[in-house]
Amino acid sequence: MVKLRLRTSRREEAIDVTERVRRAIAESGIREGTCTVFAPHTTCAIAVNEGHDPAVMEDFLNHMRELVPREAGFEHAEGNSDSHIKALLVGPSATVPITAGALTLGQWQSIFMCEFDGPRERSLWVSVTGEGRR
Amino acid sequence: MVKLRLRTSRREEAIDVTERVRRAIAESGIREGTCTVFAPHTTCAIAVNEGHDPAVMEDFLNHMRELVPREAGFEHAEGNSDSHIKALLVGPSATVPITAGALTLGQWQSIFMCEFDGPRERSLWVSVTGEGRR
Amino acid sequence: MVKLRLRTSRREEAIDVTERVRRAIAESGIREGTCTVFAPHTTCAIAVNEGHDPAVMEDFLNHMRELVPREAGFEHAEGNSDSHIKALLVGPSATVPITAGALTLGQWQSIFMCEFDGPRERSLWVSVTGEGRR
Repeated sequence: MVKLRLRTSRREEAIDVTERVRRAIAESGIREGTCTVFAPHTTCAIAVNEGHDPAVMEDFLNHMRELVPREAGFEHAEGNSDSHIKALLVGPSATVPITAGALTLGQWQSIFMCEFDGPRERSLWVSVTGEGRR
Repeated sequence: MVKLRLRTSRREEAIDVTERVRRAIAESGIREGTCTVFAPHTTCAIAVNEGHDPAVMEDFLNHMRELVPREAGFEHAEGNSDSHIKALLVGPSATVPITAGALTLGQWQSIFMCEFDGPRERSLWVSVTGEGRR
Repeated sequence: MVKLRLRTSRREEAIDVTERVRRAIAESGIREGTCTVFAPHTTCAIAVNEGHDPAVMEDFLNHMRELVPREAGFEHAEGNSDSHIKALLVGPSATVPITAGALTLGQWQSIFMCEFDGPRERSLWVSVTGEGRR
């Protein structure tokens, strides 16, 4: 498992981590299998979607604010219940195929770390399973 | 990794792909492990839910239209921001156990490709990891 | 694959299953890889989020009731369409890294079985893939 670090700069933000995941896979030596990108946090999430037009992920973050308003009579006292709920809806990980030693995504897909309670220092864990040289 | 093709026929549609995934696993020779079904697209998603009463997935698609209206002041200019957001909420993949060489689902579960911006030609990638003959 | 059983006691409930998953991994002998926790049902789901303050998961279950009301003109006749839709939004599984023979979660993370149509007897399947003694 490879551990990556990144720093977010806003309360809500989608950061493209595709290239960093690609490098972790290349270093693993796995040729055929899958890669799981996992966020070890409770107020951020991992998503896969369009990386070419940044408006797509901005529309997504804006719409999540409508679905889960920041103040909605929550019990949890830290003022970030909305962040937890958004993270629960998106999910803590993405599992993506590896073929011929490389991360294999669709033409328009990127992998994003979705921050819902930043800015913070965050970690990403990349687990690779399959067959290849070790 | 096995690549499957399918054609969707409506803008929003849930297509049961369970049998095609079962066949891909049988051909892989893997006996014990997991199977990841991955949609290499940004406006469709993979879901696992009830396959017996088609009303369940229709209720789901209808309710997604209420949660993410087609016109909601989005920035992305292609008119399908709702499709991207729905795909982000459902997710691009499902990972399902394989036991005794077969896809192992609950009694009422099927695997669906959820189209949110069709009709289109779509691909599905099936990655199998685990142990068995090769 | 290890099969676990659990009994839920309310219609909607988040049950922390982390310790049971930890034990299943220890028994598997896998040292490095991933673990997929899979719910073989269509009205419950697997989530990963904060396990320390129970208010977080209560806020989540409460907010899901607002996003998917129990009565919203659904077609499916069993009165649990909301349960299916909630399960679809959260997802049927979680995939978590295994390192040094142990489940590897973030400091505040737990794994939850989210019941959306209880009380019932439920199963959980734990699939482990990777390298280690067998």
